[in-house]
Amino acid sequence: MKKKTGKQSICFASPPYILETATVAGPMEGEGKLGDTYDKILEDNIHGHESWEQCESFMLRTAIETAAKKSKITIPDIDYILAGDLLNQLMSTHFAIRGLERPFLGLYGACSTFAESLLLGAVLLDGGFGETIAIAVSSLHDTAERQYRFPTELGVQRPPISQWTVTGAGSAILSANGQGPRITAATIGKVVDIGIKDPNAMGPAMAPAAADTLYCHFADTGKQPAYYDMIFTGDLGAIGKQLTIELLQEKGYDISGNYEDCGLMIYFDQQDVHSGASGCASSALAFCGHIYKEMRRGRWKRILLACTGSLHSPVSYQQKESIPCIAHAVAIES
Amino acid sequence: MKKKTGKQSICFASPPYILETATVAGPMEGEGKLGDTYDKILEDNIHGHESWEQCESFMLRTAIETAAKKSKITIPDIDYILAGDLLNQLMSTHFAIRGLERPFLGLYGACSTFAESLLLGAVLLDGGFGETIAIAVSSLHDTAERQYRFPTELGVQRPPISQWTVTGAGSAILSANGQGPRITAATIGKVVDIGIKDPNAMGPAMAPAAADTLYCHFADTGKQPAYYDMIFTGDLGAIGKQLTIELLQEKGYDISGNYEDCGLMIYFDQQDVHSGASGCASSALAFCGHIYKEMRRGRWKRILLACTGSLHSPVSYQQKESIPCIAHAVAIES
Repeated sequence: MKKKTGKQSICFASPPYILETATVAGPMEGEGKLGDTYDKILEDNIHGHESWEQCESFMLRTAIETAAKKSKITIPDIDYILAGDLLNQLMSTHFAIRGLERPFLGLYGACSTFAESLLLGAVLLDGGFGETIAIAVSSLHDTAERQYRFPTELGVQRPPISQWTVTGAGSAILSANGQGPRITAATIGKVVDIGIKDPNAMGPAMAPAAADTLYCHFADTGKQPAYYDMIFTGDLGAIGKQLTIELLQEKGYDISGNYEDCGLMIYFDQQDVHSGASGCASSALAFCGHIYKEMRRGRWKRILLACTGSLHSPVSYQQKESIPCIAHAVAIES
Repeated sequence: MKKKTGKQSICFASPPYILETATVAGPMEGEGKLGDTYDKILEDNIHGHESWEQCESFMLRTAIETAAKKSKITIPDIDYILAGDLLNQLMSTHFAIRGLERPFLGLYGACSTFAESLLLGAVLLDGGFGETIAIAVSSLHDTAERQYRFPTELGVQRPPISQWTVTGAGSAILSANGQGPRITAATIGKVVDIGIKDPNAMGPAMAPAAADTLYCHFADTGKQPAYYDMIFTGDLGAIGKQLTIELLQEKGYDISGNYEDCGLMIYFDQQDVHSGASGCASSALAFCGHIYKEMRRGRWKRILLACTGSLHSPVSYQQKESIPCIAHAVAIES
């Protein structure tokens, strides 16, 4: 079987199973729309640690340990861990993984890292390189804000177009054998940059990357949007979601009837996060908390998850560069 | 064939070929020991660009384009690009990849990224997910110094234990078919942290990770150090190299007769870099410039390359954390 399909897609010969998922969420996320789907909700964003970064590490590690426990495996049963986060040098991830003593591969795709880790985990399993893989990502509002934008103490006013970085971590246990929804295909994104320079406008900046990857997925696999019960993007927010629908309409694909953005699933309107949620944990909480469980319940049989990442850095912004973006998609079917 | 071997290693069923390699180096590297092995040597670390970061992006992209040209393929022939660098949010990589329009996966393993990209590239090819992959990494002395240590204009005195971040980029074209040295095995490292907190002492901090991965490689594969004509580590420098030899001796493996550190191969003693070279480009320049060509010439038939990464961040240092480290190894055989 030819696994590479079309220009950017992979169809797995023996689609790996997602045995279980687990989530740890911040308090604001706990009060949000999907609050009752998370495994653990913290009482604040620091949870007794000395720093927000330590708390983010704790969340990531707890998510992996919880996912392993729910899958009825131990940490030593895990062949490899694939993980990443938004912080410089993947700080949260490395300090979370430090004590786990498992072979580890660090990934960076900004908020697309959740899909990147799912697809590379599936590649390792389908390729016969192992039996069991843990994938995980995290983000924490305060660590991300002070790194990407302003010192958090400043309380800078946010423009209406801005999104709110999700506090949370999500992990999934992938296995070559077992039961559960399976990762059947993936589309690896290109770096797309349409010249947007405002780091508050990440949804509009990422929408062309999302549309490009979704278009490639449909073109490569010959599938129509209706093949999927639902299509999700990672964290485009209200404006980015609408743009993605329009960009795909121009290319002949109508996703308006079965498409939602994870960035619009996390918070209630009255939580005042402006244009929606963002961060690695936007898609991770939505998928590991909600979507995966709905698939297990039988509500959806086939979903397509395209996680979107804004690849700019504070230095690139200061140097007046535009924002390169990427999106990776994974098809998951029961 | 069972590809997972032992606890942390992979033996490839159809070992992918390294068709060609290419390098771009800074002026100081051009004047170093391996200067005559590089494809392009810049006249200074900025090469007419507006920033060091732009120059690093230029180096990375030029390395990929040169490697493709030497392999007699075009950029559209590349199925996937796997790449990374030392900068926050992989800035050099993302801006280098932006115009290439190829499916891209971003990796972060600090200075171990070169081995991480080689091994994941080999996983994709051996698993049947594509035919042709470009991998690349870069580092640039001035971008890394100002991010990790002090503003470069300060001219802060460096302690004798410190190493010098290499300015350079290396790329390799991997292929499921063709000719050239082949990636036969890989060992994926664990995060190892022995509690060192001095970010100048990266060699000693990384040595236990290097020794752990090399030990696992020998234990997993049943091979002795003498199986390899040469064993290389990435950027341990003088002190880290000696420590690695001693740590492996304690575990029953003597590598002292056929082992060198890439960090000691880049510069002449009189170039006054103190304890040796460091950075993603240390192993990338040594391998893509020198080691690969010596293998093609027949001097070495089997080598083991273990790239080492120090996973700390300036924030983790300020928060008084110790330095987590990792090493990934790839076996390459003609």
